[in-house]
Amino acid sequence: MWGGRFDAPPDPRVQRFTESISFDWRLLDADLRVADAHAAMLRARGLISAKDLAAIRRGVASIRRDGEARKLVFDESLEDIHTHVEHWLRERVGAAADKLHTARSRNDLVSTDLRLWMQDAATALLAELRALVRSLAKLAARNVDAIMPGYTHLQRAQPVTFAHVVLGYAEMLLRDRERIRDAAGRANRSPLGAGAIAGTTLPITRASTARALGFSGTLENSIDAVSDRDFVAEFVGALAILAVHLSRIGEDLVLWSTTEFGFVAMSDAVTTGSSLMPQKRNPDVAELVRGKAARVIGAHVALLTLQKGLPLAYNRDLQEDKEACFDAFDSTLASVECLQVVFESLTVRVDRMRDAARDPALLATDLAEALVLRGVPFRKAHETVGRAVRTAETGRSTRFAVPGLTASEVDVILDPARSVRRRHLATSIDRVRGLVARESEWRVGARSDKA
Amino acid sequence: MWGGRFDAPPDPRVQRFTESISFDWRLLDADLRVADAHAAMLRARGLISAKDLAAIRRGVASIRRDGEARKLVFDESLEDIHTHVEHWLRERVGAAADKLHTARSRNDLVSTDLRLWMQDAATALLAELRALVRSLAKLAARNVDAIMPGYTHLQRAQPVTFAHVVLGYAEMLLRDRERIRDAAGRANRSPLGAGAIAGTTLPITRASTARALGFSGTLENSIDAVSDRDFVAEFVGALAILAVHLSRIGEDLVLWSTTEFGFVAMSDAVTTGSSLMPQKRNPDVAELVRGKAARVIGAHVALLTLQKGLPLAYNRDLQEDKEACFDAFDSTLASVECLQVVFESLTVRVDRMRDAARDPALLATDLAEALVLRGVPFRKAHETVGRAVRTAETGRSTRFAVPGLTASEVDVILDPARSVRRRHLATSIDRVRGLVARESEWRVGARSDKA
Amino acid sequence: MWGGRFDAPPDPRVQRFTESISFDWRLLDADLRVADAHAAMLRARGLISAKDLAAIRRGVASIRRDGEARKLVFDESLEDIHTHVEHWLRERVGAAADKLHTARSRNDLVSTDLRLWMQDAATALLAELRALVRSLAKLAARNVDAIMPGYTHLQRAQPVTFAHVVLGYAEMLLRDRERIRDAAGRANRSPLGAGAIAGTTLPITRASTARALGFSGTLENSIDAVSDRDFVAEFVGALAILAVHLSRIGEDLVLWSTTEFGFVAMSDAVTTGSSLMPQKRNPDVAELVRGKAARVIGAHVALLTLQKGLPLAYNRDLQEDKEACFDAFDSTLASVECLQVVFESLTVRVDRMRDAARDPALLATDLAEALVLRGVPFRKAHETVGRAVRTAETGRSTRFAVPGLTASEVDVILDPARSVRRRHLATSIDRVRGLVARESEWRVGARSDKA
Amino acid sequence: MWGGRFDAPPDPRVQRFTESISFDWRLLDADLRVADAHAAMLRARGLISAKDLAAIRRGVASIRRDGEARKLVFDESLEDIHTHVEHWLRERVGAAADKLHTARSRNDLVSTDLRLWMQDAATALLAELRALVRSLAKLAARNVDAIMPGYTHLQRAQPVTFAHVVLGYAEMLLRDRERIRDAAGRANRSPLGAGAIAGTTLPITRASTARALGFSGTLENSIDAVSDRDFVAEFVGALAILAVHLSRIGEDLVLWSTTEFGFVAMSDAVTTGSSLMPQKRNPDVAELVRGKAARVIGAHVALLTLQKGLPLAYNRDLQEDKEACFDAFDSTLASVECLQVVFESLTVRVDRMRDAARDPALLATDLAEALVLRGVPFRKAHETVGRAVRTAETGRSTRFAVPGLTASEVDVILDPARSVRRRHLATSIDRVRGLVARESEWRVGARSDKA
Repeated sequence: MWGGRFDAPPDPRVQRFTESISFDWRLLDADLRVADAHAAMLRARGLISAKDLAAIRRGVASIRRDGEARKLVFDESLEDIHTHVEHWLRERVGAAADKLHTARSRNDLVSTDLRLWMQDAATALLAELRALVRSLAKLAARNVDAIMPGYTHLQRAQPVTFAHVVLGYAEMLLRDRERIRDAAGRANRSPLGAGAIAGTTLPITRASTARALGFSGTLENSIDAVSDRDFVAEFVGALAILAVHLSRIGEDLVLWSTTEFGFVAMSDAVTTGSSLMPQKRNPDVAELVRGKAARVIGAHVALLTLQKGLPLAYNRDLQEDKEACFDAFDSTLASVECLQVVFESLTVRVDRMRDAARDPALLATDLAEALVLRGVPFRKAHETVGRAVRTAETGRSTRFAVPGLTASEVDVILDPARSVRRRHLATSIDRVRGLVARESEWRVGARSDKA
Repeated sequence: MWGGRFDAPPDPRVQRFTESISFDWRLLDADLRVADAHAAMLRARGLISAKDLAAIRRGVASIRRDGEARKLVFDESLEDIHTHVEHWLRERVGAAADKLHTARSRNDLVSTDLRLWMQDAATALLAELRALVRSLAKLAARNVDAIMPGYTHLQRAQPVTFAHVVLGYAEMLLRDRERIRDAAGRANRSPLGAGAIAGTTLPITRASTARALGFSGTLENSIDAVSDRDFVAEFVGALAILAVHLSRIGEDLVLWSTTEFGFVAMSDAVTTGSSLMPQKRNPDVAELVRGKAARVIGAHVALLTLQKGLPLAYNRDLQEDKEACFDAFDSTLASVECLQVVFESLTVRVDRMRDAARDPALLATDLAEALVLRGVPFRKAHETVGRAVRTAETGRSTRFAVPGLTASEVDVILDPARSVRRRHLATSIDRVRGLVARESEWRVGARSDKA
Repeated sequence: MWGGRFDAPPDPRVQRFTESISFDWRLLDADLRVADAHAAMLRARGLISAKDLAAIRRGVASIRRDGEARKLVFDESLEDIHTHVEHWLRERVGAAADKLHTARSRNDLVSTDLRLWMQDAATALLAELRALVRSLAKLAARNVDAIMPGYTHLQRAQPVTFAHVVLGYAEMLLRDRERIRDAAGRANRSPLGAGAIAGTTLPITRASTARALGFSGTLENSIDAVSDRDFVAEFVGALAILAVHLSRIGEDLVLWSTTEFGFVAMSDAVTTGSSLMPQKRNPDVAELVRGKAARVIGAHVALLTLQKGLPLAYNRDLQEDKEACFDAFDSTLASVECLQVVFESLTVRVDRMRDAARDPALLATDLAEALVLRGVPFRKAHETVGRAVRTAETGRSTRFAVPGLTASEVDVILDPARSVRRRHLATSIDRVRGLVARESEWRVGARSDKA
Repeated sequence: MWGGRFDAPPDPRVQRFTESISFDWRLLDADLRVADAHAAMLRARGLISAKDLAAIRRGVASIRRDGEARKLVFDESLEDIHTHVEHWLRERVGAAADKLHTARSRNDLVSTDLRLWMQDAATALLAELRALVRSLAKLAARNVDAIMPGYTHLQRAQPVTFAHVVLGYAEMLLRDRERIRDAAGRANRSPLGAGAIAGTTLPITRASTARALGFSGTLENSIDAVSDRDFVAEFVGALAILAVHLSRIGEDLVLWSTTEFGFVAMSDAVTTGSSLMPQKRNPDVAELVRGKAARVIGAHVALLTLQKGLPLAYNRDLQEDKEACFDAFDSTLASVECLQVVFESLTVRVDRMRDAARDPALLATDLAEALVLRGVPFRKAHETVGRAVRTAETGRSTRFAVPGLTASEVDVILDPARSVRRRHLATSIDRVRGLVARESEWRVGARSDKA
């Protein structure tokens, strides 16, 4: 395909080293869409005949069908998906295939393909993320009265509800949704027509292929269009933050599933046993979700490091963008899916939570705030209650004695349920439900392109 | 400040290990702004007296003045900036200081401070980025006719103009601008009032402090508000992509400054010499800009890894967010500033560029496209020209002989300036200038909050 | 210092951007040692006079004294520590200072300095690491009978002793010791004399300065000597693995300090309180140790990414090696120190551990193994016991009924202390103590240089 | 395989998420070796019968044969390679298979397998690395007189030989060899017998399996043995440094292949063309080698981040260790192999190098050193020559006029070949050849285990 300039074929080790078909086959659908759109434009500009266009269309449709039927055969010596498509096309429609690559280069083509793939990937991920947030909202709705300790530094801090915790996850994921939409939206501009680096002398129109492929516009500068992979780094960066969020949820689930906490029990569907220890039921999904974050971070690092210090424009190093991107996407998507299963089948042990929340030290802040309402400066109130806690802890008293509050006032304050109600928290359930319900909140490309 | 619960002081090594004042002093201004806004709200809700508010305001103003005059004394045993401010306030206004921490915690406070700092940081960075893009636009305007080889794989590919290359940089930076705005905009919501984890039983209003501090709204969920640092990871992620872009510009500048390329010469103001070799003039700024990208990537990794697998809510690990964030910001900002100096004082060697662009192989694609216009399928045209190149290269001919084109047709095509004109490139200068001119494009927080 | 080639001074922003004195002052001691050794060699080779040598020695001694007395003044315009030393020397001894830089370059000098610094840093770190392992060995010795559950997947797995767990930490740290020694040993070769890239035409002897500075040999190839920072990446890589180990210890300490686990209590000396919640006692040191791992990983990434794709030989990017290295070292050293304090003041709640270890499910594996000893194939024994656990768990029986074992046989097996004894574990205490005792195990440079 | 504790099967999405057979099939050979050794030990300790042992051996041999013949069928529902082996064994030899898992767990098994794999991997990598160093030594031997400019900051610095540069690469790779040997040597201890976390009550002997499998000893502490993956992080860390070295070589090759430098030409076997531009011959291998470094760094980050903050002992997150490790190994190995092909078929353009080395500024340091030999202090000599360079550069003189040197003295000094000879460089070729020749230098496990 490189034409007449070479005398000798590549060394087989080199061929294996440089091929990308083993992973860029995932761009098949995008590459075929581009073939259709590009051929139509070439025809409209008089660069190919109506007959050629018909042949290309027929060939593309045939390849698509064979792809769906898994009948396509890949060949390492054909390097990448673009060469495969051209090759398959030639097998099907002969000479017309030789005209498809008119006024385009693999440099602009691969960036176009990857951007199209990303739109689909983001759409799929947002759908699963929406389902996960919906699961969380349902779980919250079922547990608005489930009092448990809130933790800071993993020490019991103040009573909260399980709904409140779960809605905290939802808020994190709602921001991830925004980041993914922003990344996909910013990537949604067409490099097609940028050629290898400097466009073409042929009379093409870039706007028409951009429109046909659903892009919101074209990338103006051809050098930028072929050489930058910031859109991949941004997308995977958004995935990395999402994966880190999921890892935190995973950590909580692992902790809560311990005998010691015992706040939740996972179903058989999401736990595994031990090959040695007969009694074990392990929260493997939650652990793997935690571990996958490391992998996505690693992919993100690879993408940033890859581009660091590269001269403009296209360099072959950039071929390394795809595996990292695909792997980060697959890992994140699967984590989101599996956490849905976890949350949908989760047993919440409301009684264990309630028992833990009975710890009176959790209400120390409420006691201090009660003193504030009686006119004690907060810093003094804090110290007073701190002493009372220490006294109770050392066993010198069986209850909190707080100067400035009567024993019955203290007792009233020490009711965790009342404490939670006093603080008007966890009201964001309606907000979360509203966002989950609204279709447009989960649509890629809805972002208005500011530039 | 932790009140009455502790018998013994911290170990000195531990104190040094856990203090943050050595870096979070940068949050002084934000902490004072929060003090003012919080005190005003406490007064409005009847939680402190008018006299207390006046005292706090007076104290805050005094601290601010002393800060500007660099008269504040820091003390490691006072842990962090929040404790320092409370301490300085007590020195100045006595008992009223004990009331400032009513209904707030360092957990919500530090997140509020950092978000405010980030708005200022993003504003400063966008201003410098704008200046850099303006420099690039000027440089492009001066070099619209400077023909040079465009490179792919660092091999000469096709003729372009220097303006075209430089505008490619501008496009990259314009997307960075969007990412920074998006990150700052998404961070621009107030955690204040979330308390340590679960809000407060006192009758505060969160919306009023949010408004007073210029936030676009509040973070709804108190657990989320104190425990998530996704906004730091996103901001530094945007910086990392920007830093990688700058590293690519740095690489180009290093290459072009070599004796071998010789396309540009940097001024004495941005180069350094050698302690050993008298003749050296080294492109240190460009090299360091390239190196700084590694540092910013490292900071980004630290921030993601830091949060991976942490249980909700606040954990002390999160204290590590600030140094990485400050360092990434400082490194990126300085790189942007110094590249301005480089571009403003750059000598462009138009003649060296032109000489390099005379290489006839750069027009091989144009020859192939000329064949296409005569009806030759592109794949065949590509092969024909490839053979002609090989023939010329092996010295068997002194010029390109392309079957299907006359010698004089070939000669016309082999003019690089004509080639560039045929391709209608580098027209984005007006677009870039327009965006640079428009103030609103460079304003933080202009982003409409979608959620 | 760059001599006569420049007309104009650097731009002030550029000067601030390129200076390194704000961090490479830490190389002062190394730079002075090199000055002494280099001057002695120059004299021995007749390149400077005896008088010059005496002057340089006097000047170096004076700078050293002033450094110890903190009387040296740094100046950003003097770029780096090497220029400062030459400048201070000139102030003290005049013209002799102009001869010190004979036959050396900052390129070989900075690598020499950093390698010397690393030997000291590794020595200091190994001493602290040894102290930490000693603390762990003591803690283990005091807790050989403290039975607790061993966890896998954070689910209770089998009974172990606290000593066994703590000695597990020791084993990890003993490997870290080896890695640090290997890294420091491999770095312990002298680049001095490599000059800027290609040595010198002057008749120096490289071996003599190498010997005088305590190096185990010279780096043969001058280009390699000035351009590679693999030794920094390897050292910080070893620190990163150590920091990750410490983060795992930190995580365990955080978990065990929870109310739910309650296995240990940390002293006031290593915990902190809350500004809002009077009752809190937070395991901040353990959390920060966990967080510091992220920072050290970030530094390691920065160092690898920094060097990726750099052409030989020295490039200014390499200046970025030092801050990452110093920061990783400081963070790791402080973590090791503070964990000593934690372990030395740790209260082990043997009763809480024992209670947790009473869970009969922990002995399920022992039951299965008892069946194996009676001839039941393991896979079948595993299944039999698994069913018994499920039956007991669902409350259909108050005790384990295991077909093939009598109730009293089961009872004997269900004693966790006996189980631990049967397994002959935690015997590595002598091995650990032996290694701690042996001085040579903790010495840098003991490594015999294989190449 | 988890026996009788579970009622319901895993959710299919969870099964796909948690399976590892899609990548841990690479441990098949190791797993079979362990099966043989473990069964022999069980027999020696009377835990299985001679008949069982014979059956297991027969089964293992059969599986091995089928593996080599690619006749084994994998099944996602059988999770991992260990379960597959047990399953295949049961298919072949029935009940004896149920006894193989006696006194072992997948926790100790997987760590054993991976360590065995690593020994083979390191052996294979060292063999290729040796071949690469041999290629470099040959290339150096052919080019000891090829004078070229040495570069610092990519500016021409001083004349060197091409041999000198190439031997610099060899030195870097020789240290990589040491790091890989150290990492593999440190990993070469047996976890087998550690069980799930706490060994076994059955009377096994750990030393015998360790010996049979070629380990240098056992890991003493069972908790450490199953939970630590420092050996993977260290190995991949060594690969990352190697990959970074290769990336620097790749960068040099890319630079030298440019039209502007023109120092080397790569063969058709290692270059590729363009789908659009007929004239292109791109150094893709060198570029991809550079890019692969990013990927290996990413894998390293993933491995460190994965383990950060994990509680002891085995957690399912650790399953993520293998893909990162395999991928880093494959990428590095392939890079080493392909660079061999590059260097073996490299055309060195000695004339282009010589022309570039004629630049008289390259000898400025030699001029300054000549002044030193005449008694001028170096700093003054440096300045004098610096001025001469500037004067020559500005065209005010056609040659260097150096006060203190006659024109003919200057002329003698300005001969680059003489300069190189004066500096006695590039002599390390014998050292490199010697190390390449010695078999033992390239053997894994030769490292004497210090602990």
